[in-house]
Amino acid sequence: MSTKRVLGIDPGTGICGFGVVQYTTHKPPRMITAGVITTPAHTPLADRLLDIYDSLNQIIDETKPDEVSIEKLYFNQNITTGITVAEARGVCILVAKQHNIPIFEYTPLQIKQTLTGYGRAKKKDMQEAVRVYLNMSQVVKPDDAADALAAAITHALMTRIAYL
Amino acid sequence: MSTKRVLGIDPGTGICGFGVVQYTTHKPPRMITAGVITTPAHTPLADRLLDIYDSLNQIIDETKPDEVSIEKLYFNQNITTGITVAEARGVCILVAKQHNIPIFEYTPLQIKQTLTGYGRAKKKDMQEAVRVYLNMSQVVKPDDAADALAAAITHALMTRIAYL
Repeated sequence: MSTKRVLGIDPGTGICGFGVVQYTTHKPPRMITAGVITTPAHTPLADRLLDIYDSLNQIIDETKPDEVSIEKLYFNQNITTGITVAEARGVCILVAKQHNIPIFEYTPLQIKQTLTGYGRAKKKDMQEAVRVYLNMSQVVKPDDAADALAAAITHALMTRIAYL
Repeated sequence: MSTKRVLGIDPGTGICGFGVVQYTTHKPPRMITAGVITTPAHTPLADRLLDIYDSLNQIIDETKPDEVSIEKLYFNQNITTGITVAEARGVCILVAKQHNIPIFEYTPLQIKQTLTGYGRAKKKDMQEAVRVYLNMSQVVKPDDAADALAAAITHALMTRIAYL
């Protein structure tokens, strides 16, 4: 019997989503944890990045993921938001690397396509797909935690992990 | 007599410039060190970010700067390059914060304006301004090291540090 854990990350400086999914041979996938690292409005960038660094270190120490899946940036939206997301992304990738965990990147399009079969799926459809896949009674809240789980599931489905 | 050191950073994942300038009461400003953190082409992002993290930690431990000045992103150029610069910037700001060093941000426009009096100064004019200001016989090479020194000098000139 083999077990693997994937940590999904939806990066951001204000809200950074995370979610860990466990795959075990002959068992359905299971959510280990999911949530968000969040700082109050107007918190200086440096404090936010330090908070993300410390929190993500703690999450990794506690859940011991084997691989990390992180959303790749895609610019159809606000460029200023994109910058802060990239700053948070840099810190998240650093933490995973410091723990020697392999890191994989997927675009929002790939994640939507993998979870729902449709690259332009709506947020609500994505949340429902995550809920059904993980066999949960309610959708995961907040949104960024569900997005992080979606990134983790995408990586598992696109590699051997989901078919242990 | 009072002494202050400013660490300037020109962030980037492929090449990350740094430069430390020391200000002492009644003495001309002096360059303590300047250089670049660089990784070979095609190095994975995670390795680059870890290298920047470790190198910047070492530079701060060795030079003990009192304040950090870092270039703010400005998008008139390549958006893809901008993303990787932001990822590196996030890691640089994290390291400064972990050392409890105050961080200040300046746009390329502010840096050019401060060093040369002209917001659209050419790279060569900037390098010459840095050389003259630090009373050096030759311009600092590579460019990114000179840009980092320019960021440090800008912060000193825009605050009380240059007038200790």
